[in-house]
Amino acid sequence: MNDKHDRIRAVVWTGGGIRLLDQRRLPQEETYWTATCAFEIAEAITKMVVRGAPAIGIAAAYGVVLAARAHFAEANFRWKAQIKADLQVLEAARPTAVNLAWALQRMGSLINALPSDVNPETALLAEAQRIHEEDIAANRRMGELGAAFIDGPAKVLTHCNTGSLATGGFGTALGVIRYAYSEGRINKVFADETRPWLQGARLTAWELLQDKIPVVLIADSVAPYLLGQGQIQWVIIGADRIAANGDIANKIGSYGLAVAARYHGVRFMVVAPTSTIDWSLPDGMEIPIEQRPPEEVLTLAGKDIAMSGTKAYNPAFDVTPAHLIDVVVTEKGVVRQPNSERMKVLQV
Amino acid sequence: MNDKHDRIRAVVWTGGGIRLLDQRRLPQEETYWTATCAFEIAEAITKMVVRGAPAIGIAAAYGVVLAARAHFAEANFRWKAQIKADLQVLEAARPTAVNLAWALQRMGSLINALPSDVNPETALLAEAQRIHEEDIAANRRMGELGAAFIDGPAKVLTHCNTGSLATGGFGTALGVIRYAYSEGRINKVFADETRPWLQGARLTAWELLQDKIPVVLIADSVAPYLLGQGQIQWVIIGADRIAANGDIANKIGSYGLAVAARYHGVRFMVVAPTSTIDWSLPDGMEIPIEQRPPEEVLTLAGKDIAMSGTKAYNPAFDVTPAHLIDVVVTEKGVVRQPNSERMKVLQV
Repeated sequence: MNDKHDRIRAVVWTGGGIRLLDQRRLPQEETYWTATCAFEIAEAITKMVVRGAPAIGIAAAYGVVLAARAHFAEANFRWKAQIKADLQVLEAARPTAVNLAWALQRMGSLINALPSDVNPETALLAEAQRIHEEDIAANRRMGELGAAFIDGPAKVLTHCNTGSLATGGFGTALGVIRYAYSEGRINKVFADETRPWLQGARLTAWELLQDKIPVVLIADSVAPYLLGQGQIQWVIIGADRIAANGDIANKIGSYGLAVAARYHGVRFMVVAPTSTIDWSLPDGMEIPIEQRPPEEVLTLAGKDIAMSGTKAYNPAFDVTPAHLIDVVVTEKGVVRQPNSERMKVLQV
Repeated sequence: MNDKHDRIRAVVWTGGGIRLLDQRRLPQEETYWTATCAFEIAEAITKMVVRGAPAIGIAAAYGVVLAARAHFAEANFRWKAQIKADLQVLEAARPTAVNLAWALQRMGSLINALPSDVNPETALLAEAQRIHEEDIAANRRMGELGAAFIDGPAKVLTHCNTGSLATGGFGTALGVIRYAYSEGRINKVFADETRPWLQGARLTAWELLQDKIPVVLIADSVAPYLLGQGQIQWVIIGADRIAANGDIANKIGSYGLAVAARYHGVRFMVVAPTSTIDWSLPDGMEIPIEQRPPEEVLTLAGKDIAMSGTKAYNPAFDVTPAHLIDVVVTEKGVVRQPNSERMKVLQV
């Protein structure tokens, strides 16, 4: 595995703040959003300038650094009290992915351990950068572990975007696909376009084309037809939150893919770092599902696609029960046929 | 059932030709395409100015009238030889829906029975109008038969557009929905947006809004999530071709809905006139599946949504096996749990 498949960075620390590759404008424009305070980062997360469970956790961690810098400069030793509001705003930016809360908890624990009267920036920045670097390393490890399951040359199907754009770099499900492709285990990737936000069309196809990995874009509803024709050996997706029993929340449409994959005997792999696991939830029923604005369904690029006055329902995620998943791949190891008992090996 | 729910007409005979409500421009613009010869009608079918299995059969029947008029005016008694090319062009306009071939066969039989030396226009126009009127009557009958299955007040899910725009008037699956709504058997309709052509967003939601039937638009991949939540009592769709054993071809995505509906124990109804049945095909494996241009997937509302150079796969239909269908509703009666034996009651 060489580094040519790992050039895209969704989140970059610039010293003065973070630079985000604006994912709302890809692939037509590569423009950047610069955030110099925590509130701007929260806004970028809510508006999906940056998206993908691991990437929003990383962006939020840098947001804590910026908040600490500002409060320490302004009010010196009262910065610890003042930063609490920033942590809350960042955590509320999106509800489903738990990596956001996980990254903020990690930054919060460090804040608690730091002295009030010393500038916390260096220590917090080092922690945010560790979160970022650990995520990239985790993705590479998951790529290796996941690829080993694929007897090639296989055709695989993926949903949404789980690549460098969704993570610190390299990707989760797309990391497995990159790794497996480099080993000759995969020779073709079908990418669901992933309505309404079109992450598959705009982001996944863009990433794979840049890496020269053969990708074919399909409307989401084509997937069961391909599965029925025996054209797909693995469905490989990411996760935004994993419950203690292995149920997973992921982009809307994941559940339908899991049902169709099981119906056709096609294997189903979920790839996510352990920061995605919410051990406090016994199962997926309690994962909060974000409702996004109806306009994402009713318009495209500012253009109406339905008659004015049409109602739309736009849940951003669904929950796939563990019994439909063949393997969960994390950086700490894999869990076949996940359930509460088997998932415990990851709780170390 | 009153007529206020039946004002839209996709195909109108004007005397000089036919006027088609241009379905590519709905719902933003209500513009019309006028066709005065068979070739223009074939073009309108291929380009989807008019679409929907029954509607394209009706449009093609009027195309035969226009061809006969032109050839008789031009070459008098050689019109029967000359019209063969027109029939072929019309039949080749789209491959999957069998109503097109059925309507042309019916017009062709009449042509064979007519004398060569008498202007055939009056007889052919009467036949085309009979095909049109019979379709509307069939839709109303199917509406009544299908609605009787629904214990209301129910929430139902439909896919693509099967309404007045897809037929002579009233609709097949949407005719059942209209009828059942008027009887209080349905209180909410979820409409799949139906990528890539967005028939659900652009046409079905438009028709239902005009009739004041409560409709909620969803991205196609939301459907399994709704089915899993017990929010849907019936999935109701149309068909473009039905094989002798009850397998059906319909808009891409229908098969995935059928798999998800069965998985969740939700009932699945197919509504189509008997002109949709192709008795020559023992099962659905042999139904030709139209491949539409990749541009339909790569663009949305005329705008690129993927990077230039992206490949896309765009089958317009899929096949749902009979064993996943609870009931087929036709104007000649219903078939529960269809198979080759049970389907025979419709072959009269």
